[in-house]
Amino acid sequence: MTASADDSTAPAGSGADPSGARERILSAAFVLFQESGYEGTSVNRIARAAGMTPAAIYWHFPSKQDVLAAMLTQMYERSYAELKGSVRPDAPAVERLGDYVRAYVRIQLESVGERRNHSYSALASSLTDESQRELGRLSRPYIGLMREILRQGIDEGDFDIDDVSVTSYAISTMCEYVFTWFRRGGRLSIEQAADKHLELVLRMVNAKRPAS
Amino acid sequence: MTASADDSTAPAGSGADPSGARERILSAAFVLFQESGYEGTSVNRIARAAGMTPAAIYWHFPSKQDVLAAMLTQMYERSYAELKGSVRPDAPAVERLGDYVRAYVRIQLESVGERRNHSYSALASSLTDESQRELGRLSRPYIGLMREILRQGIDEGDFDIDDVSVTSYAISTMCEYVFTWFRRGGRLSIEQAADKHLELVLRMVNAKRPAS
Repeated sequence: MTASADDSTAPAGSGADPSGARERILSAAFVLFQESGYEGTSVNRIARAAGMTPAAIYWHFPSKQDVLAAMLTQMYERSYAELKGSVRPDAPAVERLGDYVRAYVRIQLESVGERRNHSYSALASSLTDESQRELGRLSRPYIGLMREILRQGIDEGDFDIDDVSVTSYAISTMCEYVFTWFRRGGRLSIEQAADKHLELVLRMVNAKRPAS
Repeated sequence: MTASADDSTAPAGSGADPSGARERILSAAFVLFQESGYEGTSVNRIARAAGMTPAAIYWHFPSKQDVLAAMLTQMYERSYAELKGSVRPDAPAVERLGDYVRAYVRIQLESVGERRNHSYSALASSLTDESQRELGRLSRPYIGLMREILRQGIDEGDFDIDDVSVTSYAISTMCEYVFTWFRRGGRLSIEQAADKHLELVLRMVNAKRPAS
């Protein structure tokens, strides 16, 4: 292992992980925490799955809580980057809303493995209040982008919305928690579930024309 | 304490709790598990909050997991009874949908205390697979009643719905997880949040007339 002391405090995504050890730890933690929860996942088990010793984990993270916080931070940042990258910046709002809803449902459902028993928000409840507030800040861009699209649609005369804030939250909630009822291998593919959510969302904003 | 040995196996809501001890344990567990999570709540703490000894808890429940399972079972049964009691049995579907959505949002938001950090579904993930399946069975009547109302509205010619199953789940999810973003003391009262959800839901089913 060639990790330097700097690694132990490098923020997720900073790239200062020459050995790839930090990334391996977070990948193992991502699977295990979702399968077994925070209390049900020991540092020993994360170490075994990452192919290293428990001492090597503590070289990179002061505590199991720091592993969880870094894993959730990375997940929120990567998912938001994927979502934002899916939404065309210069298209009409109805198209951008379609991009957003399809991508968000897809992101939520593609990460549902056989054993995703513990949602991100359930896991986050094991963090300190301060860490939870930091994660809360990372979730703001999601709702901010939705609000921006809804306001654009009103300005363009294509959406008719009574309360942009409540409508943004209602749409986001419906898409974020789709994993609580969707079953892989059931009647609908992920793409079909995404399309059906978009149809409902277009009704919620009273869209004057369909998304293509 | 006058509890008999029968109490220890009495199902929640069976009424076989002459001393009220079982009810006191479940009330204390209801608050503490939501505040501090399953791992963060000891049997000692539940005992202290219920005003009894840890040994008395174990007289009623074989383990902390059994306390959690009984607490969640009671919560699901009581909430469903309240929901069902709020929906007029013989009214047009548009009215019944209004009853359902308003009651469901109210039930979710009224139980949000200052410190509801752990949702029911997050807590349920600490149960055995078998107990989780049993709880899953208790959540089916919620979606069953929603489906029944939507089909009634189609039959009455008042709703236009592409996929009753997805629409039922989407509406339920939006209402069930409203507590993740609603803040007490914010811009909206619980009644206003419920009304705004109903407006969105009536759009989702393309209702031909408003709920009164």
